[in-house]
Order: sequence, then structure tokens, then C-alpha cells
Amino acid sequence: MDPQRIVIIGGSAAGPKTAARARRLAPDAHITMIEAGENITMSSCGYPFYIGGRFDERRHLLETPTGILRDPAYFKTNKDIDVLINTEVTRIDRWGKNVELRNLYSGEVSTLPYDRLMISTGSTAIMPPVPGISLPGVTALKTLPDADYIRKVRDEKQVKNAVIIGGGLIGLETAEALTVSGIDVTVIDLGNQVLPFLDWELAKLVEKQCLSHGVKIRLETGVEAFSGVNGHLSSVKLTTGDEIPCELAIVAIGVKPNNALAREAGLKIGENGGIRVNKYMCTSDPNIYAAGDCVELVNSVSGMRDYSPKGDQANLQGRVAADNMIFGDTVSFPGTIGTGIGKIFDFAAGSAGLNHFSAEAAGFDAVSILNSGTDKPGFMGSKSLISKLTVERSTHRILGYQCVGKGDVSRQVSEGAMAISANFTVGQMLSLDLPYSPPFSPAIDHFIASVHIMDNKLSGLIKGIGSREVWAQKNGGELRFIDVRELDEFEDRRLGIGEILIPLSTLRRRLKDIPFNNDTPIVCYCLMGLRSYEAALILTQAGFNDVRVMEGGMMAWPFPREK
Amino acid sequence: MDPQRIVIIGGSAAGPKTAARARRLAPDAHITMIEAGENITMSSCGYPFYIGGRFDERRHLLETPTGILRDPAYFKTNKDIDVLINTEVTRIDRWGKNVELRNLYSGEVSTLPYDRLMISTGSTAIMPPVPGISLPGVTALKTLPDADYIRKVRDEKQVKNAVIIGGGLIGLETAEALTVSGIDVTVIDLGNQVLPFLDWELAKLVEKQCLSHGVKIRLETGVEAFSGVNGHLSSVKLTTGDEIPCELAIVAIGVKPNNALAREAGLKIGENGGIRVNKYMCTSDPNIYAAGDCVELVNSVSGMRDYSPKGDQANLQGRVAADNMIFGDTVSFPGTIGTGIGKIFDFAAGSAGLNHFSAEAAGFDAVSILNSGTDKPGFMGSKSLISKLTVERSTHRILGYQCVGKGDVSRQVSEGAMAISANFTVGQMLSLDLPYSPPFSPAIDHFIASVHIMDNKLSGLIKGIGSREVWAQKNGGELRFIDVRELDEFEDRRLGIGEILIPLSTLRRRLKDIPFNNDTPIVCYCLMGLRSYEAALILTQAGFNDVRVMEGGMMAWPFPREK
Repeated sequence: MDPQRIVIIGGSAAGPKTAARARRLAPDAHITMIEAGENITMSSCGYPFYIGGRFDERRHLLETPTGILRDPAYFKTNKDIDVLINTEVTRIDRWGKNVELRNLYSGEVSTLPYDRLMISTGSTAIMPPVPGISLPGVTALKTLPDADYIRKVRDEKQVKNAVIIGGGLIGLETAEALTVSGIDVTVIDLGNQVLPFLDWELAKLVEKQCLSHGVKIRLETGVEAFSGVNGHLSSVKLTTGDEIPCELAIVAIGVKPNNALAREAGLKIGENGGIRVNKYMCTSDPNIYAAGDCVELVNSVSGMRDYSPKGDQANLQGRVAADNMIFGDTVSFPGTIGTGIGKIFDFAAGSAGLNHFSAEAAGFDAVSILNSGTDKPGFMGSKSLISKLTVERSTHRILGYQCVGKGDVSRQVSEGAMAISANFTVGQMLSLDLPYSPPFSPAIDHFIASVHIMDNKLSGLIKGIGSREVWAQKNGGELRFIDVRELDEFEDRRLGIGEILIPLSTLRRRLKDIPFNNDTPIVCYCLMGLRSYEAALILTQAGFNDVRVMEGGMMAWPFPREK
Repeated sequence: MDPQRIVIIGGSAAGPKTAARARRLAPDAHITMIEAGENITMSSCGYPFYIGGRFDERRHLLETPTGILRDPAYFKTNKDIDVLINTEVTRIDRWGKNVELRNLYSGEVSTLPYDRLMISTGSTAIMPPVPGISLPGVTALKTLPDADYIRKVRDEKQVKNAVIIGGGLIGLETAEALTVSGIDVTVIDLGNQVLPFLDWELAKLVEKQCLSHGVKIRLETGVEAFSGVNGHLSSVKLTTGDEIPCELAIVAIGVKPNNALAREAGLKIGENGGIRVNKYMCTSDPNIYAAGDCVELVNSVSGMRDYSPKGDQANLQGRVAADNMIFGDTVSFPGTIGTGIGKIFDFAAGSAGLNHFSAEAAGFDAVSILNSGTDKPGFMGSKSLISKLTVERSTHRILGYQCVGKGDVSRQVSEGAMAISANFTVGQMLSLDLPYSPPFSPAIDHFIASVHIMDNKLSGLIKGIGSREVWAQKNGGELRFIDVRELDEFEDRRLGIGEILIPLSTLRRRLKDIPFNNDTPIVCYCLMGLRSYEAALILTQAGFNDVRVMEGGMMAWPFPREK
């Protein structure tokens, strides 16, 4: 017999998906969804775009694709699902199989029995325990009331300066939203880069874009205190001793899973604080499932449990959980691969799987390459793509793929994510049949070109060097640098790291002019990498024994240039 | 010992890629590339965009991504590759291992010995043997001179009316190019749809877009003759008896592989006329390889040999062939999966794998679903995506994926192509971790949503019906139709096929008003499909025994509407 009473705690993403799917699978069940807040099924990933005025109608955050408001009445009339808003679950009684409820307006207390329970309590913004954190003007951007508050102060035009604490995706999206609203924004972060899902050199390119749009960024910097005047935020004191005057501070340093109910009910909690679930999204109690931001999952690339809450994953987990709640444990959730993407101004950044740093941290012997290219042929108005592909040295299996740029990053990261899900090796990706036509792709898709470069590196055809190592040895280290672009390109823009210019088009006939001996370590570079690769082959054939190519070329150069 | 003399016949796509790769693998080899035409490495897929004025600099068709002209001098100085242009290979002497050359200007004849030979002779436009085919004003769009000619007459503004014979991708891209140039265009095609890589109902949506931009389309119509006045084309006579006055006719009914040299040399030719190669791109002569438009390959989904020449595949094949020419047969080309994409006006259309029609033709028991949706959340300014997913009934393995719409079709088709390459089943695709953020995707990616609909269909949760069957039974057949959208939507736009309107939001309380008995076959539909799916569940639960959902909803409706 199907379970007849299904209770769902939480009405944001995983909860409503579970409820809707359960209704479809069990037309006769009594389904109740309980939400502590005022709203349900909020498109919380849309908050930064609402704040920045990309759209002005708040109700769009709460609508179906055809514009119908998803409120309790909608769930009742369309899906026969009872939704209790402004209602808190205060306790789960696993032995009695019921939950205790409290209406947050009336204070009324009641109990609701269940056959199957779903915990989708979500997460809460982490707020650092520093003085002044409770001052008006200091907020997170996690809930719809948070978004309402920030949109309100933005619309009132009372804010001239804002500080954002945290340079992750939400921090940078919010930095853009406030900047385009005419507010002066400083982002501070404890780490040495923005967007920790990217490796350092790609994050640096995102940082450059932010700077070029007027956002100030202070890395390796924390908050000491929030200071107020007349009971309202007036500045942020930094760990460096500096103080930034501001009327708004947004804390975006991450979220923590809401695990209190589960913990108090004696359910197993993971090391990262998320509720532990098995592959069926079932907790340590066979009648209780959990999904979304409150759970922790296995990263299927690293094999390790991690906590990386995502709205799309919450929905997919909710669907799997509903199947298993209704029919018993039959459908598996495969685990996350940590895919993410974001857009900051006109620059996109995305990643799937492990970046090089996290691959090594997970114990892999990882090999990476950088690839600079474009999303289309030049004659179609191409835009930049810079990506990093990481594979396991011994197996050549793809571990991760990152891509940033003004071009079509979304397609590239999707390809990377699919390749990781398929557990592809380099050899299996060399000749993929991907959609090609000039409006959409160059003749060799950028992701495939990245695979080709990796193949060249693994087979020893190309010997790469990263920009950080080049930067460390600029102007006087052991390395010698040859810029192989043409003279006009060099006049227009150059690194100024002690390089000499020998255009590839002249290299074969100027081999005797090269002022280095055969054992000098030489680094070639060009704009994107293709010409330096050719130059390295020519030099190697000419007897130079240690020729490397600066990966990604000048397009991926994260440091200052002479010109 | 490495082969020392490598000769490559053909300088378009596969040839130059083979030459460049061979140079990298064999720095000491003598590499010669022979091209009968004036130019090499032409971006022929860009011709329609050049013709339409998307860009005006012809040289962009012949440049590297950094703007360097790829001419024989470029190949010599950068790659030490000898390129002979305006030079025809007249014979391959397999026993002597040399090729006979003729300079097309001087008429001079010579021979060139090889250790390994690459045949990348490309393809030629098929011209129907009808009267008047040689009249000035009748042309293909296959070669750069063809493109030059069409661009010239376009720029001279002498053409008011043009007829395009063939409604494939090149035909429609050219139709757009001429239309945006102010020319009145009629496309005629023998088949009953445009874009044969799509199933009929998706092709119909592309056709509607073309019509809405003023392109006339005549299907199931052929050319009887081209007529001239004063020795120049003046009209096209159709098989229907009609005659269309025009000053330009472009024949785009397909291409045939240039196999004459290979055939005369006794190499094995396939049933489709393409040179037969094994998975190493090697012909029936172990010293002769072939790649690009002149070969035929195994479609790795159907397992059948087919001829589907593509520019990107030519490049990838050239890379594989070079590896095997130099190192012996070590690298395999996995075969094509028939991926293609194109953009016509602001509407894109793409496909990977087999469409439903071709899947059945290949002997599969295929199941398909249609999915209408969007590429982003509504509040980000979403655009339409309509797709069709086809799987094998017994194994649930993906066979094909098609997508059309104004939205980001490119990412969707890439996902489909990757899934097909990975040989994924429906179960393996339900919870893919794809990049999600409002600028790029709805919370559940459109491709994954398509997989969910397929899962629902395979598990019996949803019973679909195609729009063709609905159209066949409109206004008086056995089926009864319920439009479950809201009243304002119905007032705004409706099918008019004899439907009644019962909005989903009122359905549960109006069940008793439904004027059908329990065994009446009922079809529900809405705009995209979600509401009709919910309605079908409600009706089924209420005792109606035969309730179906019109797949893809009104967004995928290819027929005329009442309103």
C-alpha cells in the first residue's frame, strides 16, 4: 500500500518539487507542505537580478513559467497539496511518526502525523560574530525579505557606498547589481581570489573584469567590525586597519545547512553539518528523507562527501526522494559533480568537477592545461573563452573543466559537465561530434580544442608553463621569453617581462639570431597559444632543448602588462 | 622510421588539418598539399553570412583566429608545408607510390612521390539534369567562386527575385542572406518539409519562422526547367506547372563526394559514393588515407554507413588520419553521430543522433517525446526551446535529440550530442549536474526536463499524443479536446479544433461539468505541456479512462490556429 500521509518541511525548492512529484505518483495521498516563511517556491537565485533592476516585478520570483503565482491556493487547486505558511515545525517525533507545528502568527500548536517525512529545511546565511553585525544596514542576501530590504534601499537611493563581504558568486552578482544601480562597491574576501570554484589564474581574470567595471576588490582581508552612527551602519573596519565608509554591507560568505530539527530528532548529521542521506536521499530513519540545501552529498568525482548547495540539484534531489518515498528505494541520486556557473557584468565563469587545486587536495595526480580561444569564427563577431581542463595523469580521465570569458561559457561548461558525468577519458573526447555552425561555434569547438591541447601535453608534444611561474621569473630569472606575435600586435600590447619579439612568420629564417644557447630554458607565447605551440616545435627541432609554451597565451594573462 | 614524404590532395578542411598535424608529429617530413583551386582553408560554412552582409571582408573567410591570411606563404613560413595551388592531381599511381600533377595555368605535368597519401578531395554540389541548368544566373553555393558570384549580384542590386532549390540548412541560410539583402526569395523542395535532419513537426516550426520573415516555401515541388531571356535566367518552371520569375536561382539540393581519383586508383568506394575508410581513416590501400567530405563513415548510433559531410568532422578526421599516417594505425575515429545545427533568422535548429523517422528507418523500436520550454527563467527574458528526445524502447538508451527555438539551442544540442556519445540511458540522465544560474538556464535545464518527460512516458505516468493526430481528428473526430489554460490566454490565442476550455485552476471543482463519459478519449493541452500533464492526472484520478496530453502544447503546434 502507498503511504497515505506525506509531510514535507520546507517550501523553497526541494520541498515543492517533492510535493508535486509525490502527488503525481500517489494521487490519493494526503500531502502537506509546511513553510516557516510567508512565501513558497521563491526563485532565490534571481534575487541579485531583482535587486539590480534587471526586472522590477517582484512577483516574477514566485511565478510558474506561464506567469501563475505559486501560492498555497495554487498548490491546493492545481495539485491538491495543503500548504501551511508562517508555520514552524518545532519537533519531529520519529517514534510517534508525527511533527509538532506552531503557527508563527497565532502561536497555535498542533501535531501532524506522517507515513513519510521529507526534510527540506534549506540553509541559513553564515554571519561572522563580529561587533556591529546586527546594525541596520548590515544584511545577508539569502531570504526574500533580505532581497526586499536591499531592493528597497537601492530604490530609495540613500546608499552611496556598499561593502560586500565575500567574493563568491552571490557576492559578485550582488556587486554587479549594486554597481549598475549607481552604488560604489567594495568586495572584501579573506582568501587570495574571488570565486573559489575556479583555480587562481582564472579567478584573477574575473577579478580584472570586476575592477574594469569599477568594483573595488580587497583580498586577504577580513572584517573586524561594523561601525554605526545614530544606530545605523556607517562603516566597515577591516582587519588591515582600514575603514570603509558605507551605508550598506552585505554578508555573502556562505551558508550553513539548517540541521537543527534533524539533529534533535537524532538523525545522522555529516561532518560538514549537512543531514546524511544515502543515494536514495533517505536519512538514517527509513521513513524520513531529506533533500536540498540541508543535506550533504557525495561528490562523484572526488568520492568525498561535500556540502555544495545548489538550487537545481535541490529540485532533482526532490524528484528522486519523492519516487523513493512513494515506491520504496528504487531511484538513485548519482551525487553532485559540483557544477556551477555565474555571470558578472558581461563576463561568465563556470566550472564542473574538480579544479586543479581541489583535485590535488582530493589526492589525484592531476594534469591541467589552459586554452584561450573564441566561441565562434572571428567573422561572426566572436567572443573570448579561456578554459582549464584537468585530467588524472594515470588514467587520462577527465576530473574537471573550468571556463570563463565573454563568449558562450554556458555551452562549454555543459559539455564539460556531461563529459565528467560520462567519465570520459581524453581519448574518448578527441573526436566528439558537437553542433557546428558559424553562429554557434568555430570549426573545432573550444572544449574539443582543450582536449586536443591536453592530448598534446600528455603525449609530450607540448611542454607548458603557467603564467604564475613566468611572472615569478620575469625580468631576470633563469627563463628567457620570446613573444612570437607580429610587430603590430607587440606595439599595441605587450607584457614587458624581459621578452624578445620574434614573430612566428620570421622564426624559421631567424633561428641563427636567437641569442640563447641550446640549454637555455625558453618560454614562447602569443595571444592565444597556437602560434607559440608552432614556435616551440620549430625551436625544438632547431636544437633548443628546453622550450615551453605559456599556456593560454596573453588572453589568459592575469598580471599587469607593460602596455 | 617515420614516413618522409607526405602528400595531401585537397586544401580545404581535412587536408590542411592533416598537413599541420603531420608537421607537428614529424618535424623532418616533406609535406606537400595540392589544391586545384585558387584558395586554401576556406571557411565555407561562412559563405551564407558573407553573402548576406553579416561581414563584408572576404579575407575573413581565409584567416586564422588572429587575423593572419592562410595562404601558401603562411603554410611555408609557419609550418614548412609546401602548398601547390591551381594544381590538379590527375592520377594516383598506387604501385609507383606517386601522384601525377597538372598545373592548371601552365598545363605543366609532373609527378610527386609519396610514402603516405591523404585524399581529401571534398565534394561537389549536385546539379539536377534539367533544361537551362547552365544558364547564367543559376548557381550552386559550394565554392568560394560561387560565393563571390552571389555576393556580387547581391551587391549590384540587380536581383529582385531569387529561387532556392533545396530547403536544407544551406538553402535556408542562403534564403535568410538574400532576404535580409532585400531580395524576394522562394524556396522549393521535393520533400514534404524543410531541414530533413529534423522530424516533420519541428521542421514545420522552422518553416513557420521562414514564412513570418517573408520567405516563400513550396514543398513537394521540383524544378522542371530554368528559362532564360537574352541568355540569362529569367524564371524557374516548377513541376506543378507554375513559373516563378527570378534573376537568380541557387541549387542547394546536396553534395556528392569527389571520388573519381580514388575510384580510378581502384580504392574501395562505398554504397553512398564516399571513399571507404576504416576506423583509422585508412582506405583499402594501407598507404592511403582519406578524410572529410569525400569519405563515408559509420554512424555510431545506427551502426550504418552514411554520408553526412560536415566541416568540423573533416577537421577531426584529418587529425586522426595524420596520427595514423605518421605512427601507424593507433588512433580511432569513433564515427559520426550526425550532429548538426543552424540558425535561420532568429530561430535556431539542431539535432544530434537519429530523429524519430530515421531511428525507425534504422530498425529501432523508438519512443519520442516533445518538450516545450524556455532557456532561462521568465524574469531573465527567456526565449523558446522546443525539443524532441528519442530513445530505444527496450533499453531506454538515447538515440537522438532535436531542438529548435529562439533560445539557446546550441547548449541543448551539445548536451544531447554528449549524452549520445556517452550512450546514456534515461535513468543516467535524470539527475545530471549541469550549469544553472538564471542568466543561463532555468532551475531544471530544458534537456533534463525532456528526460523527465520521457521517464514519465516510459513509466506510464503520461500518455502523449502528437499534434498531427490531433489535427487529423479536429472538429468532429473521436477525440475530445480540453484546453486547460486560463480564460485570458484562450481569448488571446486558441487552436479552434473543437476544444472546450476548462482552466486547470478550476478543473478539480468542475469535474462534474465535463460533458464526456468515462471512456471518451480526451486530449488535454496547454501552452507548454505542464498544466495539461497535471490536468490529465486529475481527470484520470476522477475516473476518465483515456486521457492524453498533447505533447509540446501550443508552443509546438505546427498547424494554423483559429486565433
